[in-house]
Order: sequence, then structure tokens, then C-alpha cells
Amino acid sequence: MVKPKVGLLLGDPAGIGPELVAKLLAGYDVHEHADLIVIGDRRLFEMGQKITGVSLSPRVVSRFEDVRFGAGEVQFLDFPGVSLDEFTVGQLSAKAGRSVLEVLGFTLDLARDGKIDAIVFAPFNKQALHLGGSPFPDELHFMADRLQWKGHFSEINVLDNLWTSRVTSHIGLRQVSALITKKGVHDAILLIDGALRMAGVKEPRLLVAALNPHGGEGGLFGNEEIEAIAPAVEQARSEGMNASGPFPADTIFRRAKAGACDAIVSMYHDQGQIAMKLMGFERGVTVQGGLPIPITTPAHGTAFDIAGQGKANPQGLYQAFRLACRMGANKKCIEKKQA
Amino acid sequence: MVKPKVGLLLGDPAGIGPELVAKLLAGYDVHEHADLIVIGDRRLFEMGQKITGVSLSPRVVSRFEDVRFGAGEVQFLDFPGVSLDEFTVGQLSAKAGRSVLEVLGFTLDLARDGKIDAIVFAPFNKQALHLGGSPFPDELHFMADRLQWKGHFSEINVLDNLWTSRVTSHIGLRQVSALITKKGVHDAILLIDGALRMAGVKEPRLLVAALNPHGGEGGLFGNEEIEAIAPAVEQARSEGMNASGPFPADTIFRRAKAGACDAIVSMYHDQGQIAMKLMGFERGVTVQGGLPIPITTPAHGTAFDIAGQGKANPQGLYQAFRLACRMGANKKCIEKKQA
Repeated sequence: MVKPKVGLLLGDPAGIGPELVAKLLAGYDVHEHADLIVIGDRRLFEMGQKITGVSLSPRVVSRFEDVRFGAGEVQFLDFPGVSLDEFTVGQLSAKAGRSVLEVLGFTLDLARDGKIDAIVFAPFNKQALHLGGSPFPDELHFMADRLQWKGHFSEINVLDNLWTSRVTSHIGLRQVSALITKKGVHDAILLIDGALRMAGVKEPRLLVAALNPHGGEGGLFGNEEIEAIAPAVEQARSEGMNASGPFPADTIFRRAKAGACDAIVSMYHDQGQIAMKLMGFERGVTVQGGLPIPITTPAHGTAFDIAGQGKANPQGLYQAFRLACRMGANKKCIEKKQA
Repeated sequence: MVKPKVGLLLGDPAGIGPELVAKLLAGYDVHEHADLIVIGDRRLFEMGQKITGVSLSPRVVSRFEDVRFGAGEVQFLDFPGVSLDEFTVGQLSAKAGRSVLEVLGFTLDLARDGKIDAIVFAPFNKQALHLGGSPFPDELHFMADRLQWKGHFSEINVLDNLWTSRVTSHIGLRQVSALITKKGVHDAILLIDGALRMAGVKEPRLLVAALNPHGGEGGLFGNEEIEAIAPAVEQARSEGMNASGPFPADTIFRRAKAGACDAIVSMYHDQGQIAMKLMGFERGVTVQGGLPIPITTPAHGTAFDIAGQGKANPQGLYQAFRLACRMGANKKCIEKKQA
């Protein structure tokens, strides 16, 4: 197994990110899976250690060139951001948001230049990023722009070995139906198939959900299954993907839970999220699907309500880290073979 | 505790109903909870016993007047339906459907006349009922018509101690939004509040789901929360109901699972059903919500694919039976107090 170089970001300074990173480094077998480099403001990392009672001695450098991979110690690349007196833990802050955009942009550049293989980040806050100057609706759009990525991209949710992509996301339910097109569904199938292959799954088994109750009952409760979803599945199959469906949404996750597939392609936000959050919120991971670089983060948010108390659960960040390692290592393997 | 008189129907003759009833009577403590009367074709019951290797000696009568409640033995009211050579187990049959309509109509009349307190039925088949001559989309509409019920009615799903009603049901997702009105939401709140009270829950704690992702994000992803759902919740509260919401659908079921409520009012079919089926398909019960008589059935269907093999799981029918007993007993208590 190739060890990937993984960049770890502290997340929004005012959220639970700094304390999660301290817990992750102190309590988990991070060195077994990656050459890890934490990138962020050193003062913030020290704050996270203080909150959690952790005391690590990372090797701090201020230039990427001085990072010493393979030393079995935490490499910390100090990237000055926001002073501790410029924001309040648990409170939305424009300055904190701006500092996140800066360190994220810097890290994306490292990845684009092949200096690191994958990125995992503690939670950002979408509102803070917006206040901090990002013109994009979320971090995924910011990243795609910075990477000058022109392909299709969309959030992927992962819980243990089950992945889900979605055809539509942050829009009103009223608008969903019009966006369930053959192309939209096919894009979502293609996206998750590619992401799973990047994670080392050889022939991803994909189940595609229906939009309407009972899968539409043959057109009785809607035609999207017949006109858009089934043709998209057919196209994906003809291209060699192991996709099947559409299947009624109220039983598809039971099948997935029983191990029937690697991924479910859902049609709208809550269709997948109701099931995923019910099956295991704490262990959930979000993948920035479609981007050329593996980038992951826990499914939960900045949790301002408990930030600074040291009680945040690092399980999600650990799962996100492990997935970034897996995807980063596999990507490295594929690139070696191709070289 | 008052013992209710509960009528038990064998379900569609070609489905798993007859064998489930044999298993229920042979393996569960039915006499502890009800004065039970099985109503159906004796030959069908014998078929169910043969399939499951059960041998009971019910007391068979052919007139309701001859039923001897309280004897601690199964009372069987023989209601000739379809001959065993007129249908094939596992196959859709118009004659089977017609026989179901007849015994169901007869049983509803008994309930309407106060001769029994509640009804539990093994699964019917909607298509068979249709082929058998019912002009209604499902059995609930047939029942409401037979009982000449003019009030609001709608299916309720129950899993253990969690109940869900829904504002919309068997329609395309495209049509859902237009039906999320203040009145529709209020009706669904009222319906489940009443059903829970009929089941003996004193002050039902009701959580109402949002329609849109993240609960609409303050109007960013849709206005139904602001314009319809919140006002309906407000009205219900002003009428003394313990309702709250709207809450984002992707976390509301996690709260319910943790015991935060007795019921969730969902906005559309899959919103509730994805969660309920994931949490426990086998134990699920459907209540014919809104009707003046407690009527329950397992959440699963006729399962033609495994009918006749004796392997169907009676857990759902048992749960449906217990709920019919609870609601029947409580209704009886309330009526006594009022008398």
C-alpha cells in the first residue's frame, strides 16, 4: 500500500475544528495511513490542544519545502490566519471565514501541483465563508473554481461502505421534478462510479432510486422513472457500469443496509439524507465529488453550540481522514501505473 | 383493563394471510389481550393451518349470535368466500378480491353496530380488490364508504411507539408542493393526535417535518414552511395540541428514534416511509387513520412471492393485533365513561 500525503485543515476557527484535530492527532493511528501534514495557524492548533487537554509537539515549519515526510511525527505547516482575539469561539466571524478561504486556497494549490495527494478538512461554515468574501454558495464551488475544474461536481455522502450521490441538492422540493432529466441522472451515476473507483472499489454496484412513491407505479404517480431515470440507468449499463433501478426509495436503503450495493444514486437531498443520518450521523463523511483531487470532511458542521467545550466527537473527522487516505493512495497507484 | 372484542380477517386468500393467522393463533398470547373472533372462510383457515403445520380446533359458528366470547378458545365465524380450487396461491385473483370485499363489508357492519370493537386484517391486495369490483383506490376508501364516514381519513404508519401521518400520499412528487396547505397540514396533525389519544396516549407529543432541505433555510429553498407548515403548527398549538415544528426532515427521525416524540407528521409518502422502513419493516403496522373504528394491518403486503411456503413472518400481524386491542380497549373505556 502506498502512503499518501494528506493535508489536514483545522476548519472554521470558531467551530469545533481545532479541538477535533487535536483529538484526532492524539487519539488515532494517523501515521499508519498517511504522511500527514496539518496546514493552518499554529495559534489555532494550540487553542485546540488547550481545549481538549492534549499536548503534542508537532514539527512546525513555515515553508512546504521544509516538511519532512515519513518521519512519523506530525508535520505542521504554519499558515498565519486570524489572531485568537479577532474572533469568538462559537460565533460566526467574517475574519475567520476569510482565513479559511486563504488556507484552503493555498492547500488546493499544493494539491494541484502534486505536492499532496488528498485533503481532509474539519468543518467550515458556509455563512462565514460567504461573509469572508467567497462569492460561491458553498466550499465545493469555491474549490472547483480554484482548481479550474470544468467537469461535473456534486457532494457525495458516505457512511461506512455505503455511498450516495444526488441528482438535485439545495433547492426547494417544488423544483426537483423538473431537474430529474436523463442527463442529470446519468451525471450523478457517472460521478459516484468514478469516486468509488478512486477509492479502490473495482466494479461499483450502483442502485438508482426512484423519484415517486412506489417507484411511480408504472406511471400512475409520475413519469420521471419512465422518461428520465430508467433511460439514464440503461445508458450507464451500456457504458459498462453496474447500475440498476429505478427502485422505490422507501426500501432501497434497506437493501443497501443489507449489503446489496456500494452506492445509491438519490434524486433529492432528503431522500438520501433521511436514511444516511438515521443509519449513523456521527460516522458520516462528505466527499467533494467530481473534483480531480480527493477531498473529504465530516458530515457534521461547525457545531458552534458546543465549540470550545472539548466534547465534540472526532469520529466523523477520523472517518473522513481514512477515506481521504484511501482515495489518495489509490489515486497515487493509478497514476504510477499510468506513468 | 377492558378486553375488547376484536375481529380478525384472513386477508387475501392467495397471499400470506391465511398462514400468518394460523401462526398468530398458535404462537402468540392472543387470548390475554382480546376476545378474538376470526371471520372468514373455514376452508381458507384450514389451508393456512396445513401450510404452517398448525392444528387448532377453533369453535366454528355460522352466525355471529352463536359466538361465545370469553371462553378462552378461538371463535371462528365461518363466512363462505372462495373455494380453494377457484384461485391459485401466489397469484392475483379477481374472485379472491371479491371474497375479501364481502367479508370486509360484513365485518365493518358488525363494528358499526357495536358488536365488535376493533378489526385487524392480514394483508389485502389492492389490485385484487380492484379486480374484485371495488371502485376505490385502496381498502381505506372502501372502508370509509361502507362506514359512511364523512370526516378526514388517511393512512397512519406505526413502528413500536412511533407514529407517522402524512399530508400527501400516493401522488407524484411533482404534485406534493401544491398540496402542502395550512389546512392539509392541520388535518394531518389533528388526525394523528386523535388516533394517538384513541390508543391511550394522553398528551401526544407531535413533531412536524419540513418539506424542503434544511427546513427551507428561511425561505431560500422554498416557502412552504413559512406559509403553510408553521401556521398550521401554530393553530394546532392554540387548540391545545402539543405540536412543534417544522423541523428539517433529515434529522427529525433521529430525534424520534431517541424518544423525543410520539408521532411525526410528514409531508409526503417517502419522507416518512424511508425512515420507518429503515427502522423496522417487519414490526411495522398500518392504521386506517381517521375512521371511527380502530382498524389495523401489518405494514407489509400479501407477499405473493413467498405465499404458501409457510415462511412468512407473523411479527407484523401480531403488532397490528396488539395495536387493535389497545385502541379497541381504550375506545371502549372512553365510551363507558361517556355513557
